[in-house]
Amino acid sequence: MSKDKGITVKKEEDMPEWYSQVILKSDLADYAPVKGCYIIRPRGYAIWQAIQDNFNQRLRLHKVDNAYFPLFIPESFFHKEAEHAKGFSPEVAWLDREVTGEGERLAIRPTSETIMYDAYSKWIRSHRDLPLKINQWANVVRWETQATKLFLRSREFLWQEGHCVYETAEECEKETWLWLAEYKKLAEEVLAMPVVMGKKTDNEKFAGAVYTTTIESLMPDGKALQCGTSHNLGQGFAKSFDIKFLGREEKWEVPFQNSWGFSTRLIGGLVMTHSDDKGLVVPPKVALNKIVIIPILFEKTKEQVLHKCIELQEQLEEYNPILDSSEDKKPGWKYSEYEMKGIPLRIELGPRDLEAGHVMIARRDTGEKETVKLDQLATKIPAILQQMQDDMLEKAKKRMFDNIIETDNFAEMQKSIEAGKMALVPFCNEDECEGLIKEKTAGASSRCIPLGNETPKDGAKCIHCEKEAKVNIYFARSY
Amino acid sequence: MSKDKGITVKKEEDMPEWYSQVILKSDLADYAPVKGCYIIRPRGYAIWQAIQDNFNQRLRLHKVDNAYFPLFIPESFFHKEAEHAKGFSPEVAWLDREVTGEGERLAIRPTSETIMYDAYSKWIRSHRDLPLKINQWANVVRWETQATKLFLRSREFLWQEGHCVYETAEECEKETWLWLAEYKKLAEEVLAMPVVMGKKTDNEKFAGAVYTTTIESLMPDGKALQCGTSHNLGQGFAKSFDIKFLGREEKWEVPFQNSWGFSTRLIGGLVMTHSDDKGLVVPPKVALNKIVIIPILFEKTKEQVLHKCIELQEQLEEYNPILDSSEDKKPGWKYSEYEMKGIPLRIELGPRDLEAGHVMIARRDTGEKETVKLDQLATKIPAILQQMQDDMLEKAKKRMFDNIIETDNFAEMQKSIEAGKMALVPFCNEDECEGLIKEKTAGASSRCIPLGNETPKDGAKCIHCEKEAKVNIYFARSY
Repeated sequence: MSKDKGITVKKEEDMPEWYSQVILKSDLADYAPVKGCYIIRPRGYAIWQAIQDNFNQRLRLHKVDNAYFPLFIPESFFHKEAEHAKGFSPEVAWLDREVTGEGERLAIRPTSETIMYDAYSKWIRSHRDLPLKINQWANVVRWETQATKLFLRSREFLWQEGHCVYETAEECEKETWLWLAEYKKLAEEVLAMPVVMGKKTDNEKFAGAVYTTTIESLMPDGKALQCGTSHNLGQGFAKSFDIKFLGREEKWEVPFQNSWGFSTRLIGGLVMTHSDDKGLVVPPKVALNKIVIIPILFEKTKEQVLHKCIELQEQLEEYNPILDSSEDKKPGWKYSEYEMKGIPLRIELGPRDLEAGHVMIARRDTGEKETVKLDQLATKIPAILQQMQDDMLEKAKKRMFDNIIETDNFAEMQKSIEAGKMALVPFCNEDECEGLIKEKTAGASSRCIPLGNETPKDGAKCIHCEKEAKVNIYFARSY
Repeated sequence: MSKDKGITVKKEEDMPEWYSQVILKSDLADYAPVKGCYIIRPRGYAIWQAIQDNFNQRLRLHKVDNAYFPLFIPESFFHKEAEHAKGFSPEVAWLDREVTGEGERLAIRPTSETIMYDAYSKWIRSHRDLPLKINQWANVVRWETQATKLFLRSREFLWQEGHCVYETAEECEKETWLWLAEYKKLAEEVLAMPVVMGKKTDNEKFAGAVYTTTIESLMPDGKALQCGTSHNLGQGFAKSFDIKFLGREEKWEVPFQNSWGFSTRLIGGLVMTHSDDKGLVVPPKVALNKIVIIPILFEKTKEQVLHKCIELQEQLEEYNPILDSSEDKKPGWKYSEYEMKGIPLRIELGPRDLEAGHVMIARRDTGEKETVKLDQLATKIPAILQQMQDDMLEKAKKRMFDNIIETDNFAEMQKSIEAGKMALVPFCNEDECEGLIKEKTAGASSRCIPLGNETPKDGAKCIHCEKEAKVNIYFARSY
């Protein structure tokens, strides 16, 4: 292995330390000289780009356009929507007044509702201007005071934020859920990360929203990760920002809005979900280099083997393959190195393989090896990559659903959460009770009321207070 | 036309006002509530995305990876490279200390050399780590005190910045020019915007660079626009940031670096180059909607005509066509509206066209109309779009080169610059003389020493001071 050796702790034994080591040693990210910030290195950024490419297709399909709004937001904008101001005030970073001079303070955007809706109020005049559907890819800043963690919690992060305006409440509601469904597809189809989806309690909703919907994934350490949220904003922001339109009846009406976002946090979830004690494992769809070619070199046959490897590298260009032909490191060292870095497929080629006209292909996720004829590579490689992508999702799904239990017994719920599970339980849906459950379960919070399974059985009682249960809900500790 | 009518001034008569109107009325951008900042609206952002998509292919081809570094930079970093600090200090925006607490001030990046090279010094150990080639797409902030202008000068803008590290000076030099050549291709092939390329004088180079190369385009008002720069940084930053590597001889060596960037300013150049008194004109490759379909509606035949138009919209989906079937506006009004918005092709379809099995296609740049059989659309549309793209470049080239004069007579140079031309002249290449020329020509600055035509004729004298000429150089007023 390299000078700093491989991952020195086991995932099961010390997940936080394992997590940092996997990210740092696979070159996904690095710490920055500014506290709470980090650098996304090329192997990490490639994952973000794969996510962007995929999501841009979904945006296009649903006729959402990309745009870009300023980084700076005047202070007064935050105060136009009271709940919103309260929700974000503690973590806003401001510009130095020496720079901005007199007048209002300028915030660095923690989210863009306010600056976007101010513009919307100028752009929207008629029902013909609706729906207005805009997405922004941007950096946002929230001055975290809690301990930060690579990808999962940081003072600056990258995200997308969609902000749509509709004529009717129905359309708005429908698309609030549409975007959540698209998030679920993205997480599962691209990141091979299974999620449950549903509605947040009032307690956990976005500041200023009527309600918030969420996709949540259960990590191997038993903590849930919120992976994306879609908010139905109703007419609250529209009223605060004076967005109105001349309706079909020639009267002024107030439109309905939603906003929805996911961030680079997804990459953290991806790492935790799939990686192992050898290092990074990522699904092929998001890997910067999908293949590493390792020649088995002996003095006599070196030239032919290298020649074939270079040929392979060219032939497989669409997979952006690495060819590691360095002679000062043994193949075994290289295997470990590229396993740590999470390259999905390893192709080994030695003189005997060359003679037999085949290569050895090893999968990063399972370690399975397979001999493949050279003339079958063009069909076998995409097939193996697709199989790997599918298997990773299935494996993660099984692990997640094996760790979700359904119960109406509070003691069992406590035990399960302690054991790193997520619990689906009947619940009164009261703030106070939610707080008490958190206290009594070492920090489990409500995650979501599952879509399609909102309503408890007739006569069901709240798992904790034993009053009438109003909803079914997931509880888990969380990131 | 719409409620605010069309463009109310002529390009030739009041270019600054015409420029703002074209951008605002074609929905490319809008003013923001924060002074010196602006909103890039979907039609404008689509141009930026087209630029990004094209340039990402070039990055991939030359094995440069994308990454993302923090927005915030510790103050001390700027001071590590003295020239660089001096160059950027006046326009740096800082975070409020109330947020950051004690310790160093944090800047919002005006450019990322310092924060990236600090990381590079940790990542680079051996000649095997080189070349290191990273690009970043990001927002940067420079607190302009001059008047700002949509796309051309603003306090926040979007750009790409490439930062590469090489083993040898030769490689570094070669790729400094390689990126400039890629910029030229991007400007010409995608934006249909012709440029000249060359080296900046020491006076105009980037703070901290050994030399700066640039592409410059001459705008129709006679001002040059710097469209992209590529800097050979030599070993200066590497020494300041302690970047070193164990070379092939097992000795520590200092590597060579370049950095290169272009910004959303390109969009401003695009607008000025192609647009006209009717509004926006953009080359097809960067248009969000490449086609608008306008049905000619009469009561009797409405249904059939609309039906065919919807069919066409589906058939031409790859061009993201707009179908404007509103009945409260006349076709003539719509023609003007979409001309103002710069939609490259207009397809008109009325009952007589339908009967004859054809449509009328009008090109935005020339206004030329052409009848095209319905069954030939699939081949004719890409051909017309390509022809339009090519013609726009040719037209802009002719206009630009007609306005470049070569002279060794100072009076003629003065007259030409006054008349809105760019002058190629022999020059002593001394700071002081450069300043005097600027004074005596109402602000013309040196633009670049043209690549491949650097050396003046034997015995040539400086156009101004009449000392020996050292270089040929372009002078023009500029943005």
